[in-house]
Amino acid sequence: MHAEQPVSTGRAKRLPRAVRERQIMDAAVEVFSRLGFHAASMDEISEVAGISKPMLYAYLGSKEELFATCIRRESTRMMEAIADGVEADQPPDVQLWSGLRAFFGFVGENRSSWQVLHRQASSQGGPFAQELADMRGRAISLVAALLVHSADFPNVPRAGDKEAESLAAALVGAAEALADWWLDNPEEPAGVVAARLMNLVWMGFGDLVEGNIWHPPSRRVPEGD
Amino acid sequence: MHAEQPVSTGRAKRLPRAVRERQIMDAAVEVFSRLGFHAASMDEISEVAGISKPMLYAYLGSKEELFATCIRRESTRMMEAIADGVEADQPPDVQLWSGLRAFFGFVGENRSSWQVLHRQASSQGGPFAQELADMRGRAISLVAALLVHSADFPNVPRAGDKEAESLAAALVGAAEALADWWLDNPEEPAGVVAARLMNLVWMGFGDLVEGNIWHPPSRRVPEGD
Repeated sequence: MHAEQPVSTGRAKRLPRAVRERQIMDAAVEVFSRLGFHAASMDEISEVAGISKPMLYAYLGSKEELFATCIRRESTRMMEAIADGVEADQPPDVQLWSGLRAFFGFVGENRSSWQVLHRQASSQGGPFAQELADMRGRAISLVAALLVHSADFPNVPRAGDKEAESLAAALVGAAEALADWWLDNPEEPAGVVAARLMNLVWMGFGDLVEGNIWHPPSRRVPEGD
Repeated sequence: MHAEQPVSTGRAKRLPRAVRERQIMDAAVEVFSRLGFHAASMDEISEVAGISKPMLYAYLGSKEELFATCIRRESTRMMEAIADGVEADQPPDVQLWSGLRAFFGFVGENRSSWQVLHRQASSQGGPFAQELADMRGRAISLVAALLVHSADFPNVPRAGDKEAESLAAALVGAAEALADWWLDNPEEPAGVVAARLMNLVWMGFGDLVEGNIWHPPSRRVPEGD
């Protein structure tokens, strides 16, 4: 009758595998970001996750496998946050702005994820650097699609796939580098950092030198509709 | 009398140490970029450099030490090329353009260096990633100084040191990412790639969408003086 209630048995304390794995990975991301890959131990991760070490190995394998799984999960979460944040039916500047805001919003709320994704994965090199490169490839494809799409607007010059792809690579590199800078300078709000990159890539230094600033649509038009 | 002539002795074939080291490092950069750090062997490097393996170890130490020395030399060469290229007495856009042209010019003429510096060093992680991070730090300082300097121009808004530094980090990240993209898409000339980044960061997408393109000064004013 009460089908939505969990069935209580003698094994009531066994959480579903997916929940358990999520707890372990939350703990692992926290420990990896705090101590770095090398100094992080499976002992500490099992303690923070509140499960035994044999169980930890049984669920997610060696420290290397666990770290790789963390990178994949965090990069997927981040890409989903960005894809969800982009307001696809808006003009190109608002699309870009919403994407940047989603990206810096994610980084700001998940500094441990970013630390693991960017700093730890790149300082470990090898297969972890490859996971990072794959994530970067997906981000570039997403931005390139946005730029090619904005070629539907009348005046975009020569927005061939190659040009869009190279501009997307530059933009993703800028966003990554700025997010990394932000880790060391966390006092600024996410919106300020996102707006700074938006101004750089949308307005350009040329306009900034002239004192022309990009404003989000809420500052330009009243929010009717 | 002929002081500039090398003195010919029985040891005439012994090159000065600096020359020998340069030959070894040229060979090492070529081999590392072609095969990657792991697959590169001291046998192959000594063969390409034309010296014995014991001599190779005597001059530059282990493969790890040799690789680290290569990263330092190539990053120094690149930073010097950029610093030499920047036309410091010009307006900010021309300074930025001359710096970007010098950077992409260097990468285009030294693809092996860039491969070792960027791809190999970051995929190896550890101390090599740290060398790369140091180089990035120097590049960011150089660009930030350029931006703060351009604050002498009347209309630059809020160009505090922190803001300049964060914009410089974004710009260096964009240049690195675009140069990395270029490794896989080498058919475009250095000037085209440099101009694309110049347009992105100086004009911004906003202007590009409107069809407004940045032109180097030679296309705007006749080269008098």
